[in-house]
Amino acid sequence: VSRVLVTGAGGFIGRHTLRPLLEAGHDVHAVSTRLGAGDGAPDVEWHHSDLLADPGGVVARVAPERLLHLAWYAEPGRYWTAPENIRWVEATLALVRSFAAANGTRAVLSGSCAEYEWGLPGRCVEGSTPLRPATLYGSAKNATREVVEAAAGHLGISAAWGRIFFLYGPGEDRRRLVASVASALLNGERAATSSGTQRRDFLHVADVGAAFAALVDSDVSGAVNVASGEGRSLREVIEAIGREAGRPDLLDIGARPSPPGDPDEILADVTRLGEEVGFRPRISLAEGLAQTVAWWREQARPQ
Amino acid sequence: VSRVLVTGAGGFIGRHTLRPLLEAGHDVHAVSTRLGAGDGAPDVEWHHSDLLADPGGVVARVAPERLLHLAWYAEPGRYWTAPENIRWVEATLALVRSFAAANGTRAVLSGSCAEYEWGLPGRCVEGSTPLRPATLYGSAKNATREVVEAAAGHLGISAAWGRIFFLYGPGEDRRRLVASVASALLNGERAATSSGTQRRDFLHVADVGAAFAALVDSDVSGAVNVASGEGRSLREVIEAIGREAGRPDLLDIGARPSPPGDPDEILADVTRLGEEVGFRPRISLAEGLAQTVAWWREQARPQ
Repeated sequence: VSRVLVTGAGGFIGRHTLRPLLEAGHDVHAVSTRLGAGDGAPDVEWHHSDLLADPGGVVARVAPERLLHLAWYAEPGRYWTAPENIRWVEATLALVRSFAAANGTRAVLSGSCAEYEWGLPGRCVEGSTPLRPATLYGSAKNATREVVEAAAGHLGISAAWGRIFFLYGPGEDRRRLVASVASALLNGERAATSSGTQRRDFLHVADVGAAFAALVDSDVSGAVNVASGEGRSLREVIEAIGREAGRPDLLDIGARPSPPGDPDEILADVTRLGEEVGFRPRISLAEGLAQTVAWWREQARPQ
Repeated sequence: VSRVLVTGAGGFIGRHTLRPLLEAGHDVHAVSTRLGAGDGAPDVEWHHSDLLADPGGVVARVAPERLLHLAWYAEPGRYWTAPENIRWVEATLALVRSFAAANGTRAVLSGSCAEYEWGLPGRCVEGSTPLRPATLYGSAKNATREVVEAAAGHLGISAAWGRIFFLYGPGEDRRRLVASVASALLNGERAATSSGTQRRDFLHVADVGAAFAALVDSDVSGAVNVASGEGRSLREVIEAIGREAGRPDLLDIGARPSPPGDPDEILADVTRLGEEVGFRPRISLAEGLAQTVAWWREQARPQ
């Protein structure tokens, strides 16, 4: 049981880390730039802070023993190439330095499948699949990981790096795949997608949050894929949403071209997450999509 | 002809970049934290600034068109593992962002042979030798390079990254190999070294400085080895210093163990530097060591 500081705590993933951390008995402190981010999480102590402006301030005030750093620039459509990624490298390194200076001992940070070289056959395996990011976002994450990993021992902390693959769930930004298809169908609109032959590893955001909470409590260091281990084609996912929404007729699969350079497969090996961290996802894709579509149905209902 | 800002301009390498940049016709602005760093360089405009405290300030004031960033933590014996490396990643990225924001167009930064995986046979080649740093210093440099390289296009700048190998010359810190052996012998002291079978690529610091000045004026992007292309054993170098100093009798080669993990060879392929940048070293190792020993002889003479 420790004092844990969670950054990005008001974000899509961050919100799902708070309950598991509380249930593990931690004293949970949450940072968010969003006003009202703490609504509905009364057992958490919220701190309103802009990590880009002052990465170390909140760490110095809270003096957390453990750090879960999820905050990053994540604007859909822009985050792959935005220069904001550079500022988040800087802020993340400053945050980790401050954490060590305040006698913190365990840091968990969020990475991405975008660190791996894409287009190779097979699943991405930590420590063996080449790290050759195709995007500024992937390079910024990979570079941050490299420094934190090399520095951890010198700073006297243990550090893990959860590499997020594809995720979905209630509350997702409407510009992202599952959210856009579900909200379109439930609003009676046509959903035009690419042919969807690309295979991806999807994990429900509540499982992603729980996996990060488990990483905070483990002593595993280095990179760990945070994923389901199951590959599904985007077409399967889109068709499942169509069925759950009761509007498969509104799907127009193949109406759009695939994004240029989109790899055929981005799949995860989850041996480390399962065997070393001891985390196994609780929500199957079928269940998770049903629950997500139900949530979007609530949103679509006229108020 | 451009306004060029040089960081680390008062340092061992930085001092040797100023004359070549002036000779190329540039308007040279130099940053240093050392007071009196500008003595003897009257055609250069000096700025006293601490880049760690305010990386963007001097860039905003000078608004340089080109940036040569050499400043980094370089305390002999400590820089391989010091947490200061993390702060220099942050400061360097902030500096590059500020430079792009001030409409700079060409940035040259200093990397290191420590970015490469050591212990592989053959010369290190940019773009093909694996980047697997063995030290925090190497990881910090490599991570900085990765972000700058991925960001350059998005920031609207062209960026090159000069990877420095081994260097020597007048004014070197006495804790480094050539300086320590030369100053010991000229003070009539015994110089105990390892067996010196390790092979390295040495380049005179004036050539290193001139190579960086050439990079500023080239449009080559990405990593470029800054080295001679010639491998010499440390023993050859030590023995040459003994001869030049006239005191081979004071050498005690093999009296010390090699540092643990010290690789047999760290050698550079210099095809890019020679053919793409068009730079060829002017000072042979024999000449350079003679001149360096002569300089140390001046220092050793009772004042």
